Amino acid sequence: MAKIAPLSGFPEFLPPARAVEQRVLASLQHTFELHGFASIETRAVETMASLTRKGEIDKEVYTVQRLRADGGEDAKLGLHFDLTVPFARYVLENAGHLQFPFRRYQIQKVWRGERPQEGRFREFVQADIDVVGQGELAWHHDVELPLAMLEALGRLSADFGLPEATMRVNNRLLSEGFYTGLGVEDPMAVLQRVDKLDKIGPAAVAESLTEELGMTRAAAQACLDLASISSADGSFVERVRALGVSNPMLDEGLEQLARVVAAIGEAMPGGAVADLSIARGLDYYTGTVYETFMAGHEAMGSISSGGRYDSLASDGRSTYPGVGLSVGVSRLLVPLLGKGVLTASRSVPTCVLVAVDSEEARPGANSLAARLRRRDIPVEVAPTADKYGKQIRYADRRGIPYVWFSTGEVKDIRSGAQTAADPDAWTPPEADRWPTVVRAEG
Amino acid sequence: MAKIAPLSGFPEFLPPARAVEQRVLASLQHTFELHGFASIETRAVETMASLTRKGEIDKEVYTVQRLRADGGEDAKLGLHFDLTVPFARYVLENAGHLQFPFRRYQIQKVWRGERPQEGRFREFVQADIDVVGQGELAWHHDVELPLAMLEALGRLSADFGLPEATMRVNNRLLSEGFYTGLGVEDPMAVLQRVDKLDKIGPAAVAESLTEELGMTRAAAQACLDLASISSADGSFVERVRALGVSNPMLDEGLEQLARVVAAIGEAMPGGAVADLSIARGLDYYTGTVYETFMAGHEAMGSISSGGRYDSLASDGRSTYPGVGLSVGVSRLLVPLLGKGVLTASRSVPTCVLVAVDSEEARPGANSLAARLRRRDIPVEVAPTADKYGKQIRYADRRGIPYVWFSTGEVKDIRSGAQTAADPDAWTPPEADRWPTVVRAEG
Repeated sequence: MAKIAPLSGFPEFLPPARAVEQRVLASLQHTFELHGFASIETRAVETMASLTRKGEIDKEVYTVQRLRADGGEDAKLGLHFDLTVPFARYVLENAGHLQFPFRRYQIQKVWRGERPQEGRFREFVQADIDVVGQGELAWHHDVELPLAMLEALGRLSADFGLPEATMRVNNRLLSEGFYTGLGVEDPMAVLQRVDKLDKIGPAAVAESLTEELGMTRAAAQACLDLASISSADGSFVERVRALGVSNPMLDEGLEQLARVVAAIGEAMPGGAVADLSIARGLDYYTGTVYETFMAGHEAMGSISSGGRYDSLASDGRSTYPGVGLSVGVSRLLVPLLGKGVLTASRSVPTCVLVAVDSEEARPGANSLAARLRRRDIPVEVAPTADKYGKQIRYADRRGIPYVWFSTGEVKDIRSGAQTAADPDAWTPPEADRWPTVVRAEG
Repeated sequence: MAKIAPLSGFPEFLPPARAVEQRVLASLQHTFELHGFASIETRAVETMASLTRKGEIDKEVYTVQRLRADGGEDAKLGLHFDLTVPFARYVLENAGHLQFPFRRYQIQKVWRGERPQEGRFREFVQADIDVVGQGELAWHHDVELPLAMLEALGRLSADFGLPEATMRVNNRLLSEGFYTGLGVEDPMAVLQRVDKLDKIGPAAVAESLTEELGMTRAAAQACLDLASISSADGSFVERVRALGVSNPMLDEGLEQLARVVAAIGEAMPGGAVADLSIARGLDYYTGTVYETFMAGHEAMGSISSGGRYDSLASDGRSTYPGVGLSVGVSRLLVPLLGKGVLTASRSVPTCVLVAVDSEEARPGANSLAARLRRRDIPVEVAPTADKYGKQIRYADRRGIPYVWFSTGEVKDIRSGAQTAADPDAWTPPEADRWPTVVRAEG
């Protein structure tokens, strides 16, 4: 017998936690569809050429190979590590069949071969929304996408009690323009180091800027000063100006960020703040970048990130600029489920257990169950003919609220109330019909 | 630029086909939950030890490895090729936290490294229902599970116009008992050859039985005679008896099959027929086995298969016998979508496009859209301020039925009817609110 043990980094849920995840995913899907995003799914595998063309990420890829690969004829494949790279490939492959701007959402598992650690997984669920244009994409989508995501997250708070989310927004042109204005030749190298601010702190970032990149202490300090700026309104612009760096790309970035933050704030006051420490490690972003934090769970890191990318997808004739955000659903849910903050009202979909007195009575119980199901009530028939007490215990262990007896009576096993009922008319309270998400208080 | 081309065997859908798939999956999920099956998902990977322990299948496994695997410390992993093996592992791993009999459904992608061919994929979606007991599982679940699956498939026919499905049922004890009664030492070897009857025909099966297994012509003929028997009622029993083979396991199989077919027929007349040619290649089945065919599409093969397994999961202390069925969702849908038999009423979720006259009017259009969304109406705001004609064309190309103008009027672009409307009161006909599945006639 093979050893049975969990695999580190591959979370799996028991049924109640899975019921919560299902409801969270359905809620995200619903909000995305209300905003006109169409669902797509892409295959789990991409060619290694496609996965590694942006560099840096290749150490995290899981490669995939047929056990009996008969040499050479197959493309080298790997599991996708995000949904953006597959989406870009999908757009190029199907451009002739899509209408642009093309709005899609995509909820799928992704895989990363990194070492598992707190809050990091090797297999996890992401939920992405993106819009891509053909040739061009208006700036207002940089406002629309974060608003749609904030609405989706807001609905999770309202419906399931998840902590409230705030978005932090920056702009790549702003950072790169600032670094360039400081005389830096490789602004991406600075960005990647500033990206570690949260993890390693300002002193270590300053050290790596001066020692690894040869920046002056003053220049390194200016980078830290820039990263320390945040504001819910447009006041960040003056504070950046006060640092005395000037560069046309910086001007463009400041203008874009001010416009985006103002427009988000107008539609959803308090929804987003400008935060000039936001860097995003991946190098395909070219403008606005987003990170999102849950109140009281900031240490969890960003639960929804994204940005504008002007050249991720290009087929030589056209480029397909886009902007999008991704929610790390597993990253958000696993800690809340693990700590018992969220659970489901019961471990099974079943609302009514139809009791069975004797095996001879089973066909009758089955047809009674079918009548209830026809009216959209989830029903199980007791697997064993048994005494009423045992049937009630069966229901109780699973959280099934009602037991229907062959006497034609239905019992709410929580209150003990038992009444005669007509299977073609009896209806449970709506709150009992399906399992619901329950938030533990305190 | 990496070459962009579809990968053979990895089907991906354009948005309208994906919309159909979503609705089909939601319908299956709904029926399964009405029957009290709880959702679980298992990780995509299993240890190779777990995947290969039943033999035979190993040539089809995709192995998975970190690109920079640093030697030895990771378990050897492969992508799951079905949902039954992962489910068995999940049950053993979580037995202490589950209530038995445990009823679960599982809708996930699976991967097989086989050569792609018509109707066969390397990545595809399966939807499984199973019930497992601890130590024992009553025979009536052999009736319950196919009935739940037939109901799920029946709902697909009723709601989306999929062809009607009929189940064909056999029993392993019956076949093995018969072969043993004929004097065969390795009944599994006979079963695997009879399983190819559809593909290679009776003459080739007879040849392989005599030449490869050394059976007499008479014995081989008896196997073919057995496989030719089918009946919607219990009359198959007499026809088997007439072949003159006797064996206690055969008796048990005949009795089980007669009982199961009678009980299915009582609950759903015409839903299932006894068909003694049904073998099922995988060797973990130990009793009832099922295959399901769609009327007019029998050449597609079985769209839902399964059976009883008494010893798939065992942890030394307990065994967990189960019975279950799996629908090959991709296998069922890809041909119907490819031939255009099924499509969606539009390519986006959007019901209403809010027109934008000028960029200054965009915030107003956005808040109108938000008001409609609050009443659960899927809305997009036009991405480009433009003349009304262009806005209508934008909607028309996507199949969006309504355009809302800044004059406060809404136009049904199919009929051309345009009326003044209150955004806090106007509601589309229910049939227009979300995309629906459309079946091409003829």
